[in-house]
Amino acid sequence: MPTENDPRFLRSREAILHAARDLLLERGPAAVTHVQVAERAAVGRATVYRHWPRAELLLMEAMATVPMPFFSDPTVPTRDWLRRELTAIARQLDLDDVRAVSTTLAGTALWDTDMDARRAQFAGVLTDRLAAALDGAQTRGEITLAIPSRDAAALAIGPMYYRSTIEHSPTGTNLIEATIEALGTWSTASSPRQ
Amino acid sequence: MPTENDPRFLRSREAILHAARDLLLERGPAAVTHVQVAERAAVGRATVYRHWPRAELLLMEAMATVPMPFFSDPTVPTRDWLRRELTAIARQLDLDDVRAVSTTLAGTALWDTDMDARRAQFAGVLTDRLAAALDGAQTRGEITLAIPSRDAAALAIGPMYYRSTIEHSPTGTNLIEATIEALGTWSTASSPRQ
Repeated sequence: MPTENDPRFLRSREAILHAARDLLLERGPAAVTHVQVAERAAVGRATVYRHWPRAELLLMEAMATVPMPFFSDPTVPTRDWLRRELTAIARQLDLDDVRAVSTTLAGTALWDTDMDARRAQFAGVLTDRLAAALDGAQTRGEITLAIPSRDAAALAIGPMYYRSTIEHSPTGTNLIEATIEALGTWSTASSPRQ
Repeated sequence: MPTENDPRFLRSREAILHAARDLLLERGPAAVTHVQVAERAAVGRATVYRHWPRAELLLMEAMATVPMPFFSDPTVPTRDWLRRELTAIARQLDLDDVRAVSTTLAGTALWDTDMDARRAQFAGVLTDRLAAALDGAQTRGEITLAIPSRDAAALAIGPMYYRSTIEHSPTGTNLIEATIEALGTWSTASSPRQ
Protein backbone atom coordinates (compact mmCIF):
# COMPACT_ATOMS: atom_id res chain seq x y z
CA MET A 1 0.00 0.00 0.00
CA PRO A 2 1.43 3.45 -0.83
CA THR A 3 2.41 5.57 2.16
CA GLU A 4 2.33 9.32 2.61
CA ASN A 5 5.82 9.75 1.16
CA ASP A 6 5.02 7.63 -1.86
CA PRO A 7 4.67 9.68 -5.07
CA ARG A 8 1.66 7.53 -5.99
CA PHE A 9 -0.02 8.55 -2.74
CA LEU A 10 0.53 12.23 -3.47
CA ARG A 11 -0.60 11.83 -7.08
CA SER A 12 -3.86 10.13 -6.13
CA ARG A 13 -4.47 12.79 -3.46
CA GLU A 14 -4.03 15.47 -6.09
CA ALA A 15 -6.33 13.68 -8.56
CA ILE A 16 -9.03 13.22 -5.91
CA LEU A 17 -8.91 16.85 -4.86
CA HIS A 18 -9.10 17.97 -8.47
CA ALA A 19 -12.10 15.68 -9.10
CA ALA A 20 -13.82 16.93 -5.95
CA ARG A 21 -13.37 20.54 -7.00
CA ASP A 22 -14.72 19.81 -10.50
CA LEU A 23 -17.78 18.05 -9.06
CA LEU A 24 -18.35 20.93 -6.65
CA LEU A 25 -18.28 23.46 -9.46
CA GLU A 26 -20.35 21.43 -11.90
CA ARG A 27 -22.99 19.88 -9.71
CA GLY A 28 -22.74 21.38 -6.26
CA PRO A 29 -21.54 20.10 -2.90
CA ALA A 30 -23.98 17.17 -2.80
CA ALA A 31 -22.08 15.61 -5.71
CA VAL A 32 -18.86 15.39 -3.70
CA THR A 33 -19.37 11.80 -2.52
CA HIS A 34 -16.78 9.04 -2.20
CA VAL A 35 -18.36 7.12 -5.07
CA GLN A 36 -18.57 9.99 -7.54
CA VAL A 37 -15.17 11.41 -6.67
CA ALA A 38 -13.56 7.97 -7.11
CA GLU A 39 -15.21 7.58 -10.51
CA ARG A 40 -14.23 11.06 -11.68
CA ALA A 41 -10.64 10.73 -10.43
CA ALA A 42 -10.34 7.22 -11.89
CA VAL A 43 -9.12 5.76 -8.60
CA GLY A 44 -10.61 3.08 -6.35
CA ARG A 45 -13.19 4.04 -3.81
CA ALA A 46 -10.93 2.69 -1.05
CA THR A 47 -8.26 5.17 -2.10
CA VAL A 48 -10.66 8.07 -1.62
CA TYR A 49 -11.59 6.73 1.83
CA ARG A 50 -7.91 6.37 2.73
CA HIS A 51 -7.23 10.03 1.96
CA TRP A 52 -10.53 11.43 3.23
CA PRO A 53 -12.51 9.12 5.51
CA ARG A 54 -15.28 11.74 5.63
CA ALA A 55 -16.63 13.20 2.39
CA GLU A 56 -17.40 16.55 3.99
CA LEU A 57 -13.75 17.03 4.89
CA LEU A 58 -12.87 16.44 1.26
CA LEU A 59 -15.51 18.97 0.27
CA MET A 60 -14.10 21.48 2.73
CA GLU A 61 -10.61 20.97 1.35
CA ALA A 62 -11.85 21.37 -2.21
CA MET A 63 -13.54 24.59 -1.14
CA ALA A 64 -10.32 25.82 0.41
CA THR A 65 -8.61 25.66 -2.99
CA VAL A 66 -10.42 28.89 -3.83
CA PRO A 67 -8.13 31.53 -2.31
CA MET A 68 -9.53 34.43 -0.27
CA PRO A 69 -6.69 36.96 -0.13
CA PHE A 70 -8.84 40.07 0.33
CA PHE A 71 -8.13 43.21 2.35
CA SER A 72 -4.54 42.26 3.09
CA ASP A 73 -1.85 44.96 2.88
CA PRO A 74 -3.86 48.20 2.83
CA THR A 75 -2.31 51.14 1.03
CA VAL A 76 -2.99 54.88 1.03
CA PRO A 77 -5.18 56.52 -0.27
CA THR A 78 -7.52 54.08 1.47
CA ARG A 79 -10.43 54.89 -0.81
CA ASP A 80 -8.47 53.79 -3.90
CA TRP A 81 -7.27 50.64 -2.15
CA LEU A 82 -10.81 49.87 -1.00
CA ARG A 83 -12.20 50.36 -4.50
CA ARG A 84 -9.61 47.93 -5.88
CA GLU A 85 -10.27 45.32 -3.19
CA LEU A 86 -14.06 45.51 -3.51
CA THR A 87 -13.80 45.31 -7.29
CA ALA A 88 -11.62 42.20 -6.93
CA ILE A 89 -14.16 40.60 -4.59
CA ALA A 90 -16.97 41.51 -6.97
CA ARG A 91 -15.14 39.85 -9.88
CA GLN A 92 -14.60 36.73 -7.74
CA LEU A 93 -18.27 36.61 -6.87
CA ASP A 94 -19.09 36.66 -10.58
CA LEU A 95 -17.53 33.19 -10.78
CA ASP A 96 -19.79 30.21 -10.26
CA ASP A 97 -17.20 28.40 -8.19
CA VAL A 98 -16.89 31.22 -5.69
CA ARG A 99 -20.67 31.44 -5.52
CA ALA A 100 -20.80 27.70 -4.85
CA VAL A 101 -18.12 27.91 -2.17
CA SER A 102 -19.66 30.85 -0.34
CA THR A 103 -23.20 29.51 -0.35
CA THR A 104 -21.97 26.05 0.66
CA LEU A 105 -19.96 27.57 3.46
CA ALA A 106 -22.95 29.57 4.68
CA GLY A 107 -25.39 26.68 4.34
CA THR A 108 -23.28 23.81 5.68
CA ALA A 109 -22.11 25.90 8.63
CA LEU A 110 -25.66 25.76 9.99
CA TRP A 111 -25.35 22.07 10.90
CA ASP A 112 -21.64 21.22 10.67
CA THR A 113 -19.33 22.38 13.46
CA ASP A 114 -16.11 22.16 11.44
CA MET A 115 -17.64 24.15 8.60
CA ASP A 116 -19.02 26.68 11.05
CA ALA A 117 -15.53 27.20 12.47
CA ARG A 118 -14.29 27.77 8.93
CA ARG A 119 -17.09 30.26 8.27
CA ALA A 120 -16.33 32.14 11.50
CA GLN A 121 -12.62 32.24 10.70
CA PHE A 122 -13.26 33.47 7.17
CA ALA A 123 -15.74 36.13 8.27
CA GLY A 124 -13.49 37.20 11.14
CA VAL A 125 -10.49 37.76 8.89
CA LEU A 126 -12.48 39.96 6.52
CA THR A 127 -14.04 41.95 9.38
CA ASP A 128 -10.71 42.41 11.21
CA ARG A 129 -8.72 43.44 8.15
CA LEU A 130 -11.27 45.94 6.88
CA ALA A 131 -11.86 47.40 10.36
CA ALA A 132 -8.12 47.89 10.89
CA ALA A 133 -7.69 49.54 7.50
CA LEU A 134 -10.62 51.92 8.09
CA ASP A 135 -9.55 52.76 11.65
CA GLY A 136 -6.16 53.68 10.20
CA ALA A 137 -7.80 55.80 7.50
CA GLN A 138 -9.88 57.61 10.11
CA THR A 139 -6.78 58.28 12.24
CA ARG A 140 -5.11 59.79 9.17
CA GLY A 141 -8.15 62.00 8.55
CA GLU A 142 -9.10 60.26 5.30
CA ILE A 143 -12.61 59.39 6.47
CA THR A 144 -15.07 60.05 9.28
CA LEU A 145 -16.75 56.69 9.72
CA ALA A 146 -20.56 56.64 9.80
CA ILE A 147 -20.57 53.21 11.46
CA PRO A 148 -18.47 51.18 13.88
CA SER A 149 -15.55 49.92 11.77
CA ARG A 150 -16.50 46.30 12.48
CA ASP A 151 -19.77 46.86 10.59
CA ALA A 152 -17.83 47.79 7.46
CA ALA A 153 -17.45 44.25 6.09
CA ALA A 154 -21.21 43.64 6.15
CA LEU A 155 -21.93 47.07 4.70
CA ALA A 156 -19.31 46.82 1.93
CA ILE A 157 -19.37 43.12 0.99
CA GLY A 158 -23.05 42.44 1.76
CA PRO A 159 -24.51 44.17 -1.30
CA MET A 160 -22.23 42.37 -3.77
CA TYR A 161 -22.72 39.07 -1.94
CA TYR A 162 -26.50 39.48 -2.25
CA ARG A 163 -26.16 40.62 -5.87
CA SER A 164 -24.12 37.52 -6.66
CA THR A 165 -25.85 34.78 -4.68
CA ILE A 166 -29.47 35.97 -4.62
CA GLU A 167 -29.78 38.16 -7.73
CA HIS A 168 -27.15 36.24 -9.80
CA SER A 169 -25.98 39.41 -11.47
CA PRO A 170 -22.60 41.10 -11.70
CA THR A 171 -21.81 43.97 -9.35
CA GLY A 172 -21.24 47.18 -11.28
CA THR A 173 -19.14 50.22 -10.44
CA ASN A 174 -22.17 52.14 -9.16
CA LEU A 175 -22.96 49.62 -6.46
CA ILE A 176 -19.34 49.49 -5.32
CA GLU A 177 -19.14 53.30 -5.15
CA ALA A 178 -22.40 53.42 -3.19
CA THR A 179 -21.03 51.01 -0.57
CA ILE A 180 -17.78 53.00 -0.30
CA GLU A 181 -19.78 56.19 0.27
CA ALA A 182 -21.99 54.43 2.84
CA LEU A 183 -19.00 53.82 5.13
CA GLY A 184 -18.67 57.48 6.09
CA THR A 185 -17.68 60.93 4.93
CA TRP A 186 -14.48 60.83 2.91
CA SER A 187 -12.28 63.92 3.10
CA THR A 188 -12.12 65.90 -0.10
CA ALA A 189 -8.36 65.32 -0.14
CA SER A 190 -9.03 61.58 -0.59
CA SER A 191 -9.39 60.68 -4.24
CA PRO A 192 -12.97 60.53 -5.53
CA ARG A 193 -13.87 58.19 -8.35
CA GLN A 194 -12.11 59.10 -11.62
CA MET B 1 -44.34 1.58 -4.12
CA PRO B 2 -46.11 4.41 -5.98
CA THR B 3 -44.12 5.99 -8.79
CA GLU B 4 -44.09 9.54 -10.04
CA ASN B 5 -46.91 8.92 -12.51
CA ASP B 6 -49.05 7.17 -9.94
CA PRO B 7 -52.09 9.24 -8.86
CA ARG B 8 -51.43 8.17 -5.26
CA PHE B 9 -47.92 9.63 -5.51
CA LEU B 10 -49.28 12.94 -6.76
CA ARG B 11 -52.04 12.96 -4.14
CA SER B 12 -49.66 12.40 -1.25
CA ARG B 13 -47.32 15.07 -2.63
CA GLU B 14 -50.22 17.52 -2.70
CA ALA B 15 -51.32 16.60 0.82
CA ILE B 16 -47.78 17.02 2.19
CA LEU B 17 -47.32 20.39 0.54
CA HIS B 18 -50.68 21.55 1.85
CA ALA B 19 -49.78 20.42 5.38
CA ALA B 20 -46.39 22.13 5.18
CA ARG B 21 -48.03 25.36 4.06
CA ASP B 22 -50.56 25.22 6.91
CA LEU B 23 -47.83 24.58 9.47
CA LEU B 24 -45.79 27.44 8.04
CA LEU B 25 -48.70 29.87 8.28
CA GLU B 26 -49.93 28.71 11.68
CA ARG B 27 -46.71 28.11 13.55
CA GLY B 28 -43.81 29.47 11.48
CA PRO B 29 -40.98 27.88 9.49
CA ALA B 30 -39.56 25.90 12.43
CA ALA B 31 -42.71 23.76 12.49
CA VAL B 32 -42.10 22.38 8.98
CA THR B 33 -40.38 19.14 10.02
CA HIS B 34 -40.78 15.65 8.55
CA VAL B 35 -42.53 14.43 11.71
CA GLN B 36 -45.05 17.23 12.01
CA VAL B 37 -45.79 17.40 8.30
CA ALA B 38 -46.41 13.64 8.19
CA GLU B 39 -48.79 13.89 11.13
CA ARG B 40 -50.69 16.85 9.70
CA ALA B 41 -50.93 15.30 6.24
CA ALA B 42 -51.92 11.92 7.67
CA VAL B 43 -49.25 10.08 5.70
CA GLY B 44 -46.30 7.99 6.86
CA ARG B 45 -43.08 9.74 7.68
CA ALA B 46 -41.33 7.64 5.01
CA THR B 47 -43.68 9.09 2.42
CA VAL B 48 -42.64 12.62 3.36
CA TYR B 49 -38.97 11.61 3.12
CA ARG B 50 -39.57 10.03 -0.28
CA HIS B 51 -41.00 13.27 -1.68
CA TRP B 52 -38.67 15.66 0.18
CA PRO B 53 -35.53 14.05 1.60
CA ARG B 54 -34.57 17.41 3.08
CA ALA B 55 -37.05 19.35 5.18
CA GLU B 56 -35.71 22.75 4.11
CA LEU B 57 -36.55 22.01 0.47
CA LEU B 58 -40.11 21.22 1.50
CA LEU B 59 -40.17 24.41 3.55
CA MET B 60 -38.92 26.36 0.56
CA GLU B 61 -41.63 24.89 -1.67
CA ALA B 62 -44.26 25.68 0.94
CA MET B 63 -42.93 29.21 1.26
CA ALA B 64 -43.30 29.68 -2.49
CA THR B 65 -47.04 29.12 -2.13
CA VAL B 66 -47.33 31.89 0.46
CA PRO B 67 -47.24 35.51 -0.70
CA MET B 68 -44.04 37.22 0.39
CA PRO B 69 -44.92 39.99 2.79
CA PHE B 70 -41.83 42.18 2.42
CA PHE B 71 -41.93 45.59 0.75
CA SER B 72 -45.60 45.22 -0.15
CA ASP B 73 -47.94 48.17 0.43
CA PRO B 74 -45.49 51.05 0.91
CA THR B 75 -46.67 53.92 3.08
CA VAL B 76 -45.48 57.51 3.53
CA PRO B 77 -43.14 58.66 5.01
CA THR B 78 -41.11 56.16 2.98
CA ARG B 79 -38.16 56.31 5.35
CA ASP B 80 -40.28 55.08 8.28
CA TRP B 81 -41.86 52.38 6.16
CA LEU B 82 -38.44 51.28 4.93
CA ARG B 83 -37.06 51.15 8.46
CA ARG B 84 -39.96 48.94 9.55
CA GLU B 85 -39.62 46.62 6.55
CA LEU B 86 -35.85 46.25 6.89
CA THR B 87 -36.19 45.63 10.63
CA ALA B 88 -38.75 42.90 9.92
CA ILE B 89 -36.41 41.27 7.39
CA ALA B 90 -33.51 41.51 9.85
CA ARG B 91 -35.55 39.80 12.57
CA GLN B 92 -36.48 37.02 10.12
CA LEU B 93 -32.81 36.56 9.21
CA ASP B 94 -32.02 36.09 12.92
CA LEU B 95 -33.99 32.82 12.77
CA ASP B 96 -32.02 29.70 11.94
CA ASP B 97 -34.77 28.36 9.68
CA VAL B 98 -34.84 31.48 7.57
CA ARG B 99 -31.05 31.37 7.35
CA ALA B 100 -31.34 27.75 6.26
CA VAL B 101 -33.97 28.55 3.65
CA SER B 102 -32.08 31.49 2.18
CA THR B 103 -28.70 29.77 2.02
CA THR B 104 -30.30 26.60 0.66
CA LEU B 105 -32.10 28.66 -1.97
CA ALA B 106 -28.90 30.43 -2.98
CA GLY B 107 -26.82 27.25 -2.97
CA THR B 108 -29.25 24.85 -4.62
CA ALA B 109 -30.09 27.38 -7.35
CA LEU B 110 -26.54 26.96 -8.69
CA TRP B 111 -27.20 23.46 -10.03
CA ASP B 112 -31.00 23.05 -9.92
CA THR B 113 -33.02 24.78 -12.65
CA ASP B 114 -36.32 24.79 -10.76
CA MET B 115 -34.69 26.22 -7.69
CA ASP B 116 -32.92 28.82 -9.79
CA ALA B 117 -36.25 29.94 -11.24
CA ARG B 118 -37.56 30.24 -7.69
CA ARG B 119 -34.51 32.27 -6.65
CA ALA B 120 -34.94 34.59 -9.61
CA GLN B 121 -38.62 35.05 -8.88
CA PHE B 122 -37.97 35.76 -5.19
CA ALA B 123 -35.15 38.22 -5.92
CA GLY B 124 -37.15 39.91 -8.66
CA VAL B 125 -40.14 40.59 -6.42
CA LEU B 126 -37.95 42.22 -3.77
CA THR B 127 -36.08 44.30 -6.35
CA ASP B 128 -39.27 45.41 -8.14
CA ARG B 129 -41.17 46.35 -5.01
CA LEU B 130 -38.37 48.29 -3.39
CA ALA B 131 -37.52 50.08 -6.66
CA ALA B 132 -41.16 51.11 -7.14
CA ALA B 133 -41.43 52.39 -3.57
CA LEU B 134 -38.23 54.42 -3.86
CA ASP B 135 -39.11 55.79 -7.28
CA GLY B 136 -42.35 56.99 -5.75
CA ALA B 137 -40.51 58.53 -2.80
CA GLN B 138 -38.18 60.36 -5.20
CA THR B 139 -41.13 61.67 -7.20
CA ARG B 140 -42.65 63.00 -3.99
CA GLY B 141 -39.36 64.71 -3.09
CA GLU B 142 -38.69 62.49 -0.08
CA ILE B 143 -35.30 61.30 -1.35
CA THR B 144 -32.74 61.98 -4.05
CA LEU B 145 -31.51 58.50 -4.91
CA ALA B 146 -27.73 57.95 -4.99
CA ILE B 147 -28.17 54.80 -7.06
CA PRO B 148 -30.47 53.34 -9.70
CA SER B 149 -33.55 52.24 -7.75
CA ARG B 150 -33.06 48.63 -8.90
CA ASP B 151 -29.78 48.54 -6.93
CA ALA B 152 -31.65 49.33 -3.72
CA ALA B 153 -32.49 45.74 -2.78
CA ALA B 154 -28.84 44.65 -2.90
CA LEU B 155 -27.72 47.77 -1.05
CA ALA B 156 -30.38 47.53 1.66
CA ILE B 157 -30.81 43.77 2.16
CA GLY B 158 -27.23 42.72 1.32
CA PRO B 159 -25.59 43.87 4.55
CA MET B 160 -28.09 42.10 6.80
CA TYR B 161 -28.01 39.00 4.60
CA TYR B 162 -24.21 38.90 4.92
CA ARG B 163 -24.42 39.66 8.65
CA SER B 164 -26.84 36.76 9.10
CA THR B 165 -25.44 34.07 6.82
CA ILE B 166 -21.70 34.80 6.86
CA GLU B 167 -21.12 36.55 10.18
CA HIS B 168 -23.95 34.75 12.04
CA SER B 169 -24.75 37.83 14.08
CA PRO B 170 -27.91 39.87 14.50
CA THR B 171 -28.34 43.07 12.50
CA GLY B 172 -28.52 46.09 14.80
CA THR B 173 -30.23 49.42 14.34
CA ASN B 174 -26.97 51.10 13.28
CA LEU B 175 -26.48 48.83 10.31
CA ILE B 176 -30.07 49.27 9.17
CA GLU B 177 -29.80 53.09 9.45
CA ALA B 178 -26.52 53.03 7.51
CA THR B 179 -28.14 51.14 4.63
CA ILE B 180 -31.11 53.53 4.61
CA GLU B 181 -28.71 56.49 4.43
CA ALA B 182 -26.72 54.78 1.65
CA LEU B 183 -29.73 54.84 -0.67
CA GLY B 184 -29.54 58.58 -1.21
CA THR B 185 -30.11 61.98 0.36
CA TRP B 186 -33.32 62.06 2.36
CA SER B 187 -35.08 65.39 2.52
CA THR B 188 -35.06 66.99 5.95
CA ALA B 189 -38.84 66.88 5.92
CA SER B 190 -38.66 63.08 5.91
CA SER B 191 -38.46 61.72 9.43
CA PRO B 192 -34.97 60.95 10.68
CA ARG B 193 -34.41 58.19 13.22
CA GLN B 194 -36.07 58.97 16.57
